[in-house]
Amino acid sequence: MPKILIKEQEHKIEIPILLTAVSGKIRIKNRSILNEYGTPVAVRRDGFALSNYVEWQIGYDVVKKEAEKLSESSLPDTEFIGANKKVKALYELSEYIWYFHKWGIVSREELGSAITYLNSIQGRNLIGNNSELQIDRSHPIAKNINGFDFEYTQVKYPLLIHKFDGYEIVTEIKITEKQYAVGTQPMLYLCFPITELKTQNNLIGRTANVKEIANFEITENNIGVFLEMLKMFGTLSSGHKYDILQIINTILI
Amino acid sequence: MPKILIKEQEHKIEIPILLTAVSGKIRIKNRSILNEYGTPVAVRRDGFALSNYVEWQIGYDVVKKEAEKLSESSLPDTEFIGANKKVKALYELSEYIWYFHKWGIVSREELGSAITYLNSIQGRNLIGNNSELQIDRSHPIAKNINGFDFEYTQVKYPLLIHKFDGYEIVTEIKITEKQYAVGTQPMLYLCFPITELKTQNNLIGRTANVKEIANFEITENNIGVFLEMLKMFGTLSSGHKYDILQIINTILI
Repeated sequence: MPKILIKEQEHKIEIPILLTAVSGKIRIKNRSILNEYGTPVAVRRDGFALSNYVEWQIGYDVVKKEAEKLSESSLPDTEFIGANKKVKALYELSEYIWYFHKWGIVSREELGSAITYLNSIQGRNLIGNNSELQIDRSHPIAKNINGFDFEYTQVKYPLLIHKFDGYEIVTEIKITEKQYAVGTQPMLYLCFPITELKTQNNLIGRTANVKEIANFEITENNIGVFLEMLKMFGTLSSGHKYDILQIINTILI
Repeated sequence: MPKILIKEQEHKIEIPILLTAVSGKIRIKNRSILNEYGTPVAVRRDGFALSNYVEWQIGYDVVKKEAEKLSESSLPDTEFIGANKKVKALYELSEYIWYFHKWGIVSREELGSAITYLNSIQGRNLIGNNSELQIDRSHPIAKNINGFDFEYTQVKYPLLIHKFDGYEIVTEIKITEKQYAVGTQPMLYLCFPITELKTQNNLIGRTANVKEIANFEITENNIGVFLEMLKMFGTLSSGHKYDILQIINTILI
C-alpha cells in the first residue's frame, strides 16, 4: 500500500487508496440497500457507480517483527505489548489518533474518557461473548436435489451496522468462526461512499485507470469518528479491549 | 503435501494426510452433532478424540501453468481445457478415478452414465442457481450494544450435507459469496471420521507427533463414493459441470 501523507501544518492525514485492488484490506464494493453485504466491483471493467463504497478492514496495530508491515507505519518506534504478548507499534487507526492528539485536536480528556468507557464494559458484554450475537443454525430438513439426498441447514451469522451520525461513514461488524481455533471472532470494517474520496477526475460513470489511487482525508472534522471506532474495537473481545487500552496509554505518554 | 502412493498391484491409492496442518485444504476438525460446522482441533496440544473428523476441500483439476501444484499430480501429462479456457490436468478426485478406470474397476458404463446424468441437469437446477439455496438476510432490527446503536441483521448461508449410504463419508456443500466477483459459490468438502485413517498407533486419546502423517486409502470398496462426488461437483455450477464433463471424457480416452 502507498504511504500515508501527514500534513502537519494543515492538521490533515491523506490515506492513499488503491482503487483497483482485487484483494487485500481495502476493496471497492457495491450494495443496493444498506443492510446487505456488498459485492466487489470490477472497477477497471465496469467503472464506478454512485452505489459504490470503500470497504476497509482497518487495523490498529502492527507486530514489530513483521518488518514489511511495520514499514507501512509512520510510527515504527512507538511500542506496546499486545494481549498476545507480542511487541507492537501503532498503525492505521491508532496512528491517526496519535497525530491528532499531538496536534491538540484529540484531547487528553477524550482519550481518558475512552479508557473509562472501556474499563466499564464487563467481559460478558463484549461483543464476542454476547449470547445474542452467536452463530446460529436452523434445524436440518431433508432435501433432494438433482437426485442426491441432503440435509439442509442455514448457518446464520450476525452482522452489526453502526452509522456515525452526520457522517457518510458506517462500521460493519461481522461475526464469523475463528479460522484456526474454536470460537467466534468479530471483524470490524469501515465503510464510506466513494464520493468521499478526493480524486482529480470525478469517479462516477468512468472506469478506473491502471493502479489508480484516490485519497481519503482525515481531518479535525472526522477524527472523532475514528476515536469512536477505536472504542468500538475495544468492545469486540477481551484481547481487543486489552490492546486498545494499551494503545490509548501509549498515545497519552 | 506429501505424494500419493499408487499401489497398482493391490488396486489401492494411499493418500497421506498431514494431521498437524493448521491451514491448507485438509484439516482435523471436531463436531458434537452432525449438523453444525466443525471447529479446528489443536491436535498437537489437545490430542485426538472420537468426535474428530478430517475435512478435506478436495479438488479435481490443476491448471498446468501452476508448476508447483502440477507436481502434486501423478498425471501431469493428462490434459483438458476448463470452462475458464485454462489448460488443466487431472488432480485428486479425477486422478483417483482415472486409475480405477484404468484398473477396470470403474467401468466405461459408469462413466458414461455420469455423463448422461450431468447432461440431464438443466442450468436452473444447478446448485449455484437454485433459488432455494441463496444467501438470505433477516430484516434489520435496532440494537444498542454497550452504548453504540446498531442495526442487527442475520446473514444466512445454506449448508447441505450428504451422507453416502453404508460409508462413514459425508460431503458438505457450503454456499458463500464469491471472493472477487458478484454472486454465490458452492464449495464442496469431503469429511470422514479420523477412525477411517490408517496409522501405526491408534490416534484416539493421544496428541499428534511432529508433522505426523496418516493415510487414507481409496480402494475398490470406496471408489464409488468418489465417483458420486465427482458427479455432485458437476451439479454445483455451469463451470463445474463443464469441467467435470471434460474430465470424464479425458478419463475415457
